[in-house]
Amino acid sequence: MIMGSKPQILITNDDGISAKGIAALIEVAKPFGDIYVLAPDKPQSGMGHAISIHDPIRLFKSELYPGVQSYACSGTPVDCVKLGIFELLGTKPDLLLSGINHGENSSTNVLYSGTMSAAIEGAMEGIPSFGFSLADFSADADFSAAQHYIQILLAQFFEKGFEPSVCLNVNIPKLPLSEIKGIRVVKQAHAYWADRFEKRQDQYGRDYFWLTGEFADLDQRPDTDLHALKEGFVSVVPTHFDLTSYAHLSHFKSWEQ
Amino acid sequence: MIMGSKPQILITNDDGISAKGIAALIEVAKPFGDIYVLAPDKPQSGMGHAISIHDPIRLFKSELYPGVQSYACSGTPVDCVKLGIFELLGTKPDLLLSGINHGENSSTNVLYSGTMSAAIEGAMEGIPSFGFSLADFSADADFSAAQHYIQILLAQFFEKGFEPSVCLNVNIPKLPLSEIKGIRVVKQAHAYWADRFEKRQDQYGRDYFWLTGEFADLDQRPDTDLHALKEGFVSVVPTHFDLTSYAHLSHFKSWEQ
Repeated sequence: MIMGSKPQILITNDDGISAKGIAALIEVAKPFGDIYVLAPDKPQSGMGHAISIHDPIRLFKSELYPGVQSYACSGTPVDCVKLGIFELLGTKPDLLLSGINHGENSSTNVLYSGTMSAAIEGAMEGIPSFGFSLADFSADADFSAAQHYIQILLAQFFEKGFEPSVCLNVNIPKLPLSEIKGIRVVKQAHAYWADRFEKRQDQYGRDYFWLTGEFADLDQRPDTDLHALKEGFVSVVPTHFDLTSYAHLSHFKSWEQ
Repeated sequence: MIMGSKPQILITNDDGISAKGIAALIEVAKPFGDIYVLAPDKPQSGMGHAISIHDPIRLFKSELYPGVQSYACSGTPVDCVKLGIFELLGTKPDLLLSGINHGENSSTNVLYSGTMSAAIEGAMEGIPSFGFSLADFSADADFSAAQHYIQILLAQFFEKGFEPSVCLNVNIPKLPLSEIKGIRVVKQAHAYWADRFEKRQDQYGRDYFWLTGEFADLDQRPDTDLHALKEGFVSVVPTHFDLTSYAHLSHFKSWEQ
């Protein structure tokens, strides 16, 4: 950040540029710096860390957020981060914010989540990055409690600074502000989706499948994101992109030849 | 695995069911068990851990691999793993193999890679899983050296067993078999893509972008996958799906409220 200038804040999401959640994030981030929005032109939930290799990407100026440079992008959330840095800003922003997602991204959902993949991409670029998610899937969710805690977290960021190569996965429980107990820094829970597929037939009698399933939390540790959320806390997981299982390096050493 | 029965081996990839790499993998895996193929019907490189939420998924019987139950799937590599378990087999296979990818998936490429995301999905399901990639993007790449080392690794798996919640990211250098020095168990390198976008104009004068860029390896550690590949070894990275940055938990503890 250049001394005396306002911080450049790049905002994206995976629910699309017109989602209520990104509007709520823009609103709470505005007092902290100059806002640049580059977000998908359509819902991109579940896109994970996908990038557009086989398709070209389109960028359209948006007038949705007056006074804010905004662009809708035909690509994925990770494409949005890359375009934001290399085309819109031409430099790395001081801060990357992704969300506020409609629906939680705790536990292993971090891998499927476009919201969190955008934040992880920011971390890969060395940009301090946050992914924010509210545990409410509804399009008309109430983001006011989420905004309250995001304001606190952004103030902490500008006061305390950040660590390189990490981003924060922030989940806010679906509770009125008065019932949220505070903020807990915790670990990604080892929960998973017990998937199943709903098999249907189209108008020609051909099968198709919808992915569905139930979320199963088998992690008994008290210091996980899922546990914190259940207890009524905002969960914050420091998240990185080194997938090496260091604990297993020595086990597999005997496989060397 | 039921005693006396042959192991069930599920095979997928991200280059599509008709790629030369998956044919090479089926060939080398066949002696080890009963093979089930469920792979994308089109190239799905760079799809990361994407799943189909907004679109239904189609499944088509394929006759590409005689004597092997094969299906082409309209979804992503991770969709293929889920459908393989819950629709094709109705149970978890004894082993999941993904690849052989045309192009390497070392370092942070693991996050973008459909090949590796399929293997990680397998690990999330508690299935011993391997992702195999050859450092040669060409459609007509020579997979013979890769097959040699995959045969060795599968034999080791059936001899030594596996660890839960982990998968192996295996990259094979683009070298003739005689020049490959062996197998090294190593860490994911902290390298990254220095991206840029190629801006073009379509027939109506409207802009579009192609994602491009150069890979930059800034990691000086000697025990990384990129280093091993450069030295002429097959790299094996034990890979997990816990993205918690444990090293940063205490740093962010002061953010609690």
